[in-house]
Amino acid sequence: MESAEFGQHILSRFNEDMERLRSDVLRMGGLAESQLGQALQSLALGDRALAADVVRGEAEVNRLEVEIDDECSRILATRAPAASDLRLVLAIIKTITDLERVGDEAHKIANIVGRRGLERGSIDGYRVVRHLGGVALAYLRDALDIFARLDAHAALEAVKRDRLLDEEYDAIQRQCITFMIEDPRTIRASIDLMWVARALERVGDHAKNICEYVIYMVGGRDVRHVSLDEVEKQLLAAVPAAGAAVAAPPPDGTA
Amino acid sequence: MESAEFGQHILSRFNEDMERLRSDVLRMGGLAESQLGQALQSLALGDRALAADVVRGEAEVNRLEVEIDDECSRILATRAPAASDLRLVLAIIKTITDLERVGDEAHKIANIVGRRGLERGSIDGYRVVRHLGGVALAYLRDALDIFARLDAHAALEAVKRDRLLDEEYDAIQRQCITFMIEDPRTIRASIDLMWVARALERVGDHAKNICEYVIYMVGGRDVRHVSLDEVEKQLLAAVPAAGAAVAAPPPDGTA
Repeated sequence: MESAEFGQHILSRFNEDMERLRSDVLRMGGLAESQLGQALQSLALGDRALAADVVRGEAEVNRLEVEIDDECSRILATRAPAASDLRLVLAIIKTITDLERVGDEAHKIANIVGRRGLERGSIDGYRVVRHLGGVALAYLRDALDIFARLDAHAALEAVKRDRLLDEEYDAIQRQCITFMIEDPRTIRASIDLMWVARALERVGDHAKNICEYVIYMVGGRDVRHVSLDEVEKQLLAAVPAAGAAVAAPPPDGTA
Repeated sequence: MESAEFGQHILSRFNEDMERLRSDVLRMGGLAESQLGQALQSLALGDRALAADVVRGEAEVNRLEVEIDDECSRILATRAPAASDLRLVLAIIKTITDLERVGDEAHKIANIVGRRGLERGSIDGYRVVRHLGGVALAYLRDALDIFARLDAHAALEAVKRDRLLDEEYDAIQRQCITFMIEDPRTIRASIDLMWVARALERVGDHAKNICEYVIYMVGGRDVRHVSLDEVEKQLLAAVPAAGAAVAAPPPDGTA
């Protein structure tokens, strides 16, 4: 009886550890999201003081990465989690790398604002990237929400959105080249704009990566470098869609 | 006696696992290095067929990433490694992400060659990035060598090299802007050149990351986002430099 209670105690400590880990990741995600939002706002307003805040704020994102990474190592070393708990820890180790890079991208955008703004005299740079900025920020927010709910099916839908972002990014690149060719005085501003667009496209990649980790966590399948049709098939085999999950046992009886 | 033999058997199986894991990473690293080397060669020669080979070759780098990642998960789940073995597995999980991204960067360079070359008529693009390409490739090769030898002190020296690469990258960016301003007909070619330089600068970041993981593996300290002086101090405390390691016990008696 004492041993069972002790086991229960260990289990509840373990669950607490895992729960804290998840909420730490969400806190780091919220911070990365806020850094990106502020970087975009500093761009919209040409607000260099706000841009400087973003540059300073990056250290906290980095600190959280190291802290969560340490916590993951500690949990692996002391609790040797198995199956879905192990997958959660491994997915978190990867997720925080992506979140740290989102912080980097926000920093890059803020640096451009701090250095020159987008030289708003010649071309209205912010107008060109405004939509892409909104899309990238919403994508990151949704990815974090999907992580919070561990919703693999929403993750699969979200993975598909990255292509739209890439298309918009390509269109902006072409537009910047047109600006430069039509009026070489816009060259510097256009290049800054290309870097901002690039940073936003990278944020989309990181959001997509986070969604892929959620699919891995829930479904136990690594879906990186696999076609979306294949991912969908694998995921439906591992985790039936909502409704089906309640109404019927998994089709192959193994999930 | 039987039990001791069984323990010995488990241990030797574990060591075999770890050794295979290390050699798999080196194989993946060799492939990423070869992809980058070929991408640079395709750029030098304007060889689109070679560039197409690089684009096709990326799938194998990606496949190795997933395979090694699975193997790491399996080892964590079945052997619950501790201390330095755990750190090795965690460092490998991170290292292969960086190697996969090196493959991505090689792919990007090859794509530019496949699309247009560097429009060698107007500016000699290859000449501009040749040195940076050589430096990035050598940096990656050294990082892999440092990983193979798990040499934390060489890793620390190598981490410092990233700054030189960044400086050369910045100089190329400025040069490209000068090309464009002086002769707007070079705009497209200069932008391609900027993307190639960017890809090479990213390779340098990945090589640096791999060196930082080696420091973490050997010294047990996470040195990302820490100043180089601080890293050096921490590393010397954890792992005395060659010579000192043989001549004297670790200064704090805990290593």
